[in-house]
Formats: sequence, structure tokens, C-alpha cells
Amino acid sequence: MEYTENLQIEKSETSKINSVNFNKLDFGRVFTDHMFVCDFADGKWQAPKIMPYQSLSFEPSARVFHYGQAVFEGMKAYKDDNGKIFLFRPDENHARINKSAARLAMPEFPKNYFFKGLEALLKLDSEWIKPGVGNSLYLRPFVIATEPAISASPANSYKFIIICSPAKSYYNSPVRVLIAEEYSRSADGGVGYAKAAGNYAAQFYPTSLAQQKGFQQVIWTDANTHKYLEEAGTMNIFFRVNDKLITAPNNDRILDGVTRKSIIQLASDLGITCEVRQITVEEIKTAARAGELKEVFGVGTAAVVSPVSAFEHKNELFEIPELENSYGQLFKKSLLNIQHNVSEDKHGWRYEVK
Amino acid sequence: MEYTENLQIEKSETSKINSVNFNKLDFGRVFTDHMFVCDFADGKWQAPKIMPYQSLSFEPSARVFHYGQAVFEGMKAYKDDNGKIFLFRPDENHARINKSAARLAMPEFPKNYFFKGLEALLKLDSEWIKPGVGNSLYLRPFVIATEPAISASPANSYKFIIICSPAKSYYNSPVRVLIAEEYSRSADGGVGYAKAAGNYAAQFYPTSLAQQKGFQQVIWTDANTHKYLEEAGTMNIFFRVNDKLITAPNNDRILDGVTRKSIIQLASDLGITCEVRQITVEEIKTAARAGELKEVFGVGTAAVVSPVSAFEHKNELFEIPELENSYGQLFKKSLLNIQHNVSEDKHGWRYEVK
Ligand SMILES: Cc1ncc(COP(=O)(O)O)c(C=O)c1O
Ligand SMILES: Cc1ncc(COP(=O)(O)O)c(C=O)c1O
Repeated sequence: MEYTENLQIEKSETSKINSVNFNKLDFGRVFTDHMFVCDFADGKWQAPKIMPYQSLSFEPSARVFHYGQAVFEGMKAYKDDNGKIFLFRPDENHARINKSAARLAMPEFPKNYFFKGLEALLKLDSEWIKPGVGNSLYLRPFVIATEPAISASPANSYKFIIICSPAKSYYNSPVRVLIAEEYSRSADGGVGYAKAAGNYAAQFYPTSLAQQKGFQQVIWTDANTHKYLEEAGTMNIFFRVNDKLITAPNNDRILDGVTRKSIIQLASDLGITCEVRQITVEEIKTAARAGELKEVFGVGTAAVVSPVSAFEHKNELFEIPELENSYGQLFKKSLLNIQHNVSEDKHGWRYEVK
Repeated sequence: MEYTENLQIEKSETSKINSVNFNKLDFGRVFTDHMFVCDFADGKWQAPKIMPYQSLSFEPSARVFHYGQAVFEGMKAYKDDNGKIFLFRPDENHARINKSAARLAMPEFPKNYFFKGLEALLKLDSEWIKPGVGNSLYLRPFVIATEPAISASPANSYKFIIICSPAKSYYNSPVRVLIAEEYSRSADGGVGYAKAAGNYAAQFYPTSLAQQKGFQQVIWTDANTHKYLEEAGTMNIFFRVNDKLITAPNNDRILDGVTRKSIIQLASDLGITCEVRQITVEEIKTAARAGELKEVFGVGTAAVVSPVSAFEHKNELFEIPELENSYGQLFKKSLLNIQHNVSEDKHGWRYEVK
């Protein structure tokens, strides 16, 4: 099927931008003036639209409310000091939302609509993207099943939407994490590798238990044995033992993160050994006891790199001392510099929005 | 917290009932004239309302769209020949929606609101419940996270809604099922035991693959080994080997079904042996080969009892010959007679709506 419809644009008459304090932004609560919406009906994606950011009307029987047939993406737009706008490896997000959609029996979204929508939206809401390394506009493409019928089967109608939320430049204070021993995030043969809505709500309760114990996040282990370290709520995870990095391989339980993949490449560029293999909780505890566990950090679009300062497993707490030459900080800086057009982009990851 | 608010009722000015053909109802597509809505805000459930069935407005950032924070129930109302309305073990559904909600870090819903809402709704839409064994009004209570913020954490605002859909009296033609070898429904330590929205969308794709091979449903096995038989998409499952029934025990992957639990009791009442224990795929295949597998049936509120006429595993197809004295048919009849106030209700399962 060819998708060549023109994009209809309905501009907002006023802007909310002056009411927003860009120095004090809570993640994901403020949205820009416009949004992109495209409906799937009669077996195809209909003409896409950009319209003022607004509430939408849904039947209470819409399938998304009952069966969680919903997938999403998370990406960011950056501005350099000359006002140029960039995305970071957006092809990856387009491919991944379609991979997620396929696993949830949802239609794939055409590439040219995805890019046309993003670009038009970013140009319209350009003022919302602040320059300065660390500032960004978080972009949330998502697809939801709208068909008003509560039989437990895939829907015939969907909405693909993109909303945008400014994200402030922040210093990530290190997080303390709990390693999962009982709860799990996803099953073999399940939907863990997809950015499926239901994967996230399933983590809220175990995470709240961890928070009550003073940990901000849970590091998930495999559901079968709880012996292997997998990923955090919205981040993949790296361990540094002496000068070697280790990260878990992709499988059907783990999200194939764009940040993780980019860091594996950056490590290789810098001559840092990075092993992609199963990691046991035991080996990390042993390394920590021997003083060989130098760093642990989570990586993802929202937080970029988030250092872990302590972890607990089986009631044993391990503090990870702060480090002078942190790989995490190095990768964070390298990524941000590429994203903001400050440094060379030798892998062609930057995508300029013209 | 005490919940004693009066229920506000806004009646629909017209009824759609005359436009509905009650002899030809697709499951879950037609809804009655009213719905029940109660909002959670400021740390408590607000005054509940009944209003005309209608679309509702949601921010595109509402958490349910992004993180699948949503749970639901499925129950039915029945009418006897004197026009009395009954529910079947509604306490179980109330307890279960709260168990599901707790697992998804959502607030529990007060019991008196649940019952007040159901009863008022059923009295208003009483005409939609047709008498006659097999006819019923399917009730769908559900809770969704409405807070307009896309940070990945539990919401502060929710909507609890009940919508109602007339279900026709139907003869279930037997289903052919595929036993899962690769895909899985839920993980140990996951949310399989909850009626969490995301559990259902996760089954759509593997089920569609089964359908392409000519099977209507998938029987899920444990995600670790795929050796143990668990449940179907929206039904628990019973196997009859010679004159003995077997059904899987509840665990954190399997929904604790009201129909299953009732059938275990009915079997005991009738002196039929019912073993509640792990069941291997192998033992069922062996029984089938020996001609000892007499029946397989799924059980659940929507289908009541659904006979299985064939199953496939590792490309081996097993046909289950039709049976004269089917336990499945016996239980179906017993349940429907209790539900419709035709037979004695010795366990106090009927709940009259007065
Ligand atoms: C479960 C999970 N893991 C990892 C990530 C990191 O992926 P990415 O680097 O593509 O943002 C995310 C967030 O997108 C996620 O949701
Ligand atoms: C996954 C699952 N298993 C089993 C059942 C059967 O449960 P019940 O008998 O309470 O309807 C349902 C439907 O409610 C279900 O969704």
C-alpha cells in the first residue's frame, strides 16, 4: 500500500509556551501546542493530521481500555546553537514501533507518515526545543486500539498519535536499585521485547515495594531463575568490572534499546571492551566484594545515562564507590555531544529536520 | 475510608433497545442505555454516577494509553421467568478486581459502590436482560488510569466504569485448540493472575497464528518449560481422563476463574473426582492415544463451558470424539440452571438484584 496523502495542518491559535517554566519541568506533564494524529480504518491508515494538542473522545468500549492493545516509542529532538533541529537515529524508533505493533497484532505505520509527522510537528513547535546540551523535546509516538467492541481480539481501528513534552537539562543523581528476586517483568515467548503498554503497568507495584525500601528502581532478572540480570524499568543496563563493560544480550524479554546499541558502538570506537552476554547476579556480587565492580549504569532515551550508586540482593546491600574516570559519564557526554551537533557524527546517527 | 455518597442518576432520554436484534448479537458490540462512572481523584473515589452510555474525553497523555494501567472484570446478569434479576457470585468479581488493581498499583474500589452501581444500572436497563436460559447481560466493570502525564509510574487519577452488553443464548460449537510451544501468556512473578489489560493484547498475535492454522484458541503452557497445561485466552481448562477430571492449580500465572471454582464444587457435589494439580502435555497426549481422554473443555463467564474437539501439539493432531454423557454439558446445564433461578442454589451463589 502506498501512503502519499498530504498532511493536513490545523494550527493552534494561541501558544501555551509563555506559561511554561523551562527551568523547572517535571518529566512528561507539559505538552507542546500541537499533536499529530492518524487513524487506521477500513484496512488502511487514513489522511494524517496535525492539530492543536487536545483531549480526544473515546467510546468506553474502545479496546485499548480493556485489552491493552497499545504500543509506544520514546525519542527526543535536540537543537544546536544555530537553531538547527536534530533527531537521533529515528529510523530505529520507526522500526521498533512496527516490531512492537506486529507482536500485538496491530498494523505497521508507514515510514513516510512517521517522518512527515515528526518533522512538521517539530517545525511548528520549534520554539519548544531549547538549545543547550541536555535540553530536549521528548517525543512520544503511540498507537492505540480504538474499536468500540469488547471481544478479546485485535481491533479494526487504531489511532497513531505523537505528542511532545519539553524535557529539562538535568543532572541525574545516582539511583539505588533492588535486584528482582520474586517479581518479573516478562516471560520467554512474551512481549518484553516490545514497547507494549502493559509491560510498564506490570512493573509499578514491584517498583513501589522497592521504593518503600529506599530504592528508586528494580533491576529485572529472568523470570525462570532470577539468576540473570536483564534491564531496568525504562533502561538497559551496563556493568563495568575493572575496565571491561558487560551488558545482557537482546532476547524476547528485553527491549532492544537505541541508547544501549549506541553505547556498544561508542565503546568499540574507544577501544573499551564490551561483552554482550548473560550476566549472573552472583558474578556481579563477587566482583563487588572484590572491589572490581567499578560502575553500574542504566541507559535510555529519557535519562541518557543514569549511574547506579548501590544495589541490594537477598538483603545484602552493595555500595558502589564514586569513580573518577567514569565510563558512564564519558558515554553520556559523547552521546549528548553527538545529539546536539557539538561533535563529529561518524556513524550518521544525527538526522537533521529541515 | 468510608464510602457513603449517594449515587447520582442521569437517565437517558431515549432507548436504543428497539434497534437491537436480540436474536443476532455479536459479542460485546452493542451496549445498553446507561453506564456507571466513578472517578478517583485527590486520594479518594468521588461521588459515583450513572449516565447515558456515551463517549468520554481523555487527554492523549492519559496513562492508560501509554502504560496499560487498566484492569477489568467480566460478569453476567440473568433474568428468570418472573422477571427477577440475578448475579452469580458477584462478591468474587469484586474481590478479584481489587486483587488485580493491587497488582497494578491501582486503588481498590469500595464494595458498596460496586454493588450500588451494578444494581442501579441493572434496574435501569432491566429490559435489556432477556429471560430464557442462556440469555444474559454481560457486565464489564473496568478501571483505567486517566492522569495526563507520561512518566512511567502509577497514576493519581482513575475512572471506574461499568458498561453492559446483551449476550445471546448460543450453542457453542466445539473449538479446535493449539497447545503453545513457543509463545507464552505470562511469567512467574508477573501479572497473569490479574485481569490486567495487557495480558490480553499479548495473546492476540500468537492466537492469530493459531487461527491461520485452523485453530480457534491457544492453550497456554508454562513459560519456562512449555510442559504444563495452564489455561486458554479467557477460559480455564478441564481435562477428563476416563471418569476423572483434572484442572491446573491456581498460581501467579493463571486467572482464578469463578466458573472453574464453581465447577470444582459441582463435581464434588456430584461425586465426580476432580484433581487440581499440574498437568503435563505428555500425559494428556498419552491419555488421548490410549483412548482415555474423554473430554476437554474451557470454562469462563462468557462461554460458560466450551467443548474442545481437537488439539494439536508438535504438529501432532488429536481429535477428541464426541461423547454421550459429557461432564462439560452436565456442568453447563447445572450452572445455567442455578444462574437462571431454575434449580436449587445450595451454595448461595445467586445474588438477587432487588
Ligand atoms: C523497557 C525499556 N528498556 C530500555 C529502554 C531504553 O531504550 P532506548 O535507549 O531506545 O530509549 C526503554 C526505553 O525506551 C525501555 O522502555
Ligand atoms: C485469562 C482468563 N482465564 C479464565 C477466565 C475465566 O474466569 P471466570 O470464570 O471468572 O469468567 C477468564 C475470564 O474471565 C480469563 O480472562
